[in-house]
Amino acid sequence: MSNPRRSAATVLTGALVLAALASSTTASSQELSAVQAPSSPLILRSRGSFLVGGENVTQTPTQLSYFTPQPPPAGTRVTVNQMYVEYMVPMHQRGAPVVMIHGATLTGKSYDTTPDGRMGWYEYFVRRGHPTYVPDQVSRGRSGFDISTYNDVRAGVKPVSALPNFWRFGDELVWTQFRFGPTFGTPFPDEQFPVEAVAELSRQAVPDLNYVLPTPNPNIAATARLATQLNGAVLMGHSQSGTLPLDAALADPTGIRAMVLLEPGGCRSTQFTDTQIAALAKIPILAVFGDHLDAVTGTVVNWQNQFNDCNAFIARVKAAGGVAEMLHPPTLGIRGNSHMIMMDKNNLQIADLILSWIGRNTRAGNQTR
Amino acid sequence: MSNPRRSAATVLTGALVLAALASSTTASSQELSAVQAPSSPLILRSRGSFLVGGENVTQTPTQLSYFTPQPPPAGTRVTVNQMYVEYMVPMHQRGAPVVMIHGATLTGKSYDTTPDGRMGWYEYFVRRGHPTYVPDQVSRGRSGFDISTYNDVRAGVKPVSALPNFWRFGDELVWTQFRFGPTFGTPFPDEQFPVEAVAELSRQAVPDLNYVLPTPNPNIAATARLATQLNGAVLMGHSQSGTLPLDAALADPTGIRAMVLLEPGGCRSTQFTDTQIAALAKIPILAVFGDHLDAVTGTVVNWQNQFNDCNAFIARVKAAGGVAEMLHPPTLGIRGNSHMIMMDKNNLQIADLILSWIGRNTRAGNQTR
Repeated sequence: MSNPRRSAATVLTGALVLAALASSTTASSQELSAVQAPSSPLILRSRGSFLVGGENVTQTPTQLSYFTPQPPPAGTRVTVNQMYVEYMVPMHQRGAPVVMIHGATLTGKSYDTTPDGRMGWYEYFVRRGHPTYVPDQVSRGRSGFDISTYNDVRAGVKPVSALPNFWRFGDELVWTQFRFGPTFGTPFPDEQFPVEAVAELSRQAVPDLNYVLPTPNPNIAATARLATQLNGAVLMGHSQSGTLPLDAALADPTGIRAMVLLEPGGCRSTQFTDTQIAALAKIPILAVFGDHLDAVTGTVVNWQNQFNDCNAFIARVKAAGGVAEMLHPPTLGIRGNSHMIMMDKNNLQIADLILSWIGRNTRAGNQTR
Repeated sequence: MSNPRRSAATVLTGALVLAALASSTTASSQELSAVQAPSSPLILRSRGSFLVGGENVTQTPTQLSYFTPQPPPAGTRVTVNQMYVEYMVPMHQRGAPVVMIHGATLTGKSYDTTPDGRMGWYEYFVRRGHPTYVPDQVSRGRSGFDISTYNDVRAGVKPVSALPNFWRFGDELVWTQFRFGPTFGTPFPDEQFPVEAVAELSRQAVPDLNYVLPTPNPNIAATARLATQLNGAVLMGHSQSGTLPLDAALADPTGIRAMVLLEPGGCRSTQFTDTQIAALAKIPILAVFGDHLDAVTGTVVNWQNQFNDCNAFIARVKAAGGVAEMLHPPTLGIRGNSHMIMMDKNNLQIADLILSWIGRNTRAGNQTR
């Protein structure tokens, strides 16, 4: 903050951001008009969506119809814990399929058009020749969730204490926790997150219902199964799902060619057994962390600690003979990346680094197993 | 059922369907492998997703964090009642933008890849030259929902009776209500819905949280606003959202060039005032109803009554000088269409009929207003 020009710019940007947040309570001028069209067409061999996994179960008698406040006929069934997946396959495939799994309180939208209307990783990876698959985590978005406990409580069959936690990140917590800046409304001078569009990120957020899920989390089996269906895929997780690829690999490594862990909440370096580390060491692993890891205090997750933990995990995997790397852009002179690195202004630059690693580690004959 | 061959085939199909439903409780062999690739590439000028509308509101103090069971700092904010929209714009536009809104307990997925893996209307309309926009209704899918009342009840601040109804259609109700056949597991002999993949439709379903929404339903303003942002769009609604285009037009007709009402739960023919009918008569309207409207008894919605009501509505609009039509495929010799007409085996044949109507009614100089 010793540079007066930068400092003034920061203050101005902060004021603009607060104005943008305030105006978001009324009609915004953003939305569709902010979305930028690419300069060249996208040519797809195929695209679409499908569901993975799920269980067909009997509805609770406490379920009430929309039309009449009556329970369903006894024994009627619904499907729960399925996982929605959208995908695009490029006309000319040049790389391995990639599965992109989103983080807490968000959906697969995280990897699509950025809050300020630029191309997201979903389309960019396709343009770079990778068939790309974007799920909504089970219990979120188009995957839906199991409402049986909710209906039981509503009907008085179960106590209120049985209601699982439904939660959202508040905008203020997001600002510091996702490292947009040191205090709400003030970005870091070199911040890469498009803070002028932070209200759009707020609009991408949905309730997080992970507490509804049974154990083990159905996302683990669904993700492993998706990789198997793809006959070999790179699994990418972010934040809440940052270590989901590791759990999927431990459940069933059959279809997993490589794993990319984007700012997980730690890598459980001391928790995995040697047997588990040996299993994980058979698949190439890349961890990615942005900038300003220790610059924000008082937030819920200390990112420096998670970074350190992932480096310790990488060391264990390497000691077990695996291929594991940390991609930390600041060491390459790339500064200012946030926790929402797939949305940052330099998101395609970061994508290129990840794509390069994927290319090196999924080449035929260059796989550990 | 007088044709013994057809009758035997029906019984066999019914048995297969029940077997498919039973097997869906365990690992299914469908999913990705059932998805069919098209024979020619899809060339897009652009694609992506964005959010329409929404309000930035203060979180309830009863909201608990994921990380610690603590309320958020006072006054933190989240966005609610926004509408997620995904879209594709073809390289060579040859028609008006179309907005496809889904029905109850479903999401925008309804218009994408069909349960048996064929091309849905979303991609087909794009291939026919229409920029196409698919929202998730506010309170559903990637649009999320407002959890404040839920959290208040969970914290004991509000009584259990404040919990809004969360509901799902049971598979058995869907079978008869959506007119797949006369009784669960038995299809009509000429049924167009791909009943062998009915378990996939069950997996597309999500909890319907419309009861969470404030009045007026935010989907009305969001849809009208989306049409305005598109500088003129055709609004298509289905079932629960079947008359949403009419409500949007009454709220703000600015961007609405035509309206397609797919099997709405009635057209409120006796409820609209003459002033409202006069306003609606300025925009071309097409209603679409499938087959077997009166063949299933004992279901919640009697489709023959809704069909009759929409014909009465059309008569009122025409009497007011408007362009309004009923597309009823059986009158064209096309039999067996279900309530999920966009997923039926002849879904592209039905799409062609609608596209033809849209073309005629959105041509420059051929608009009523």
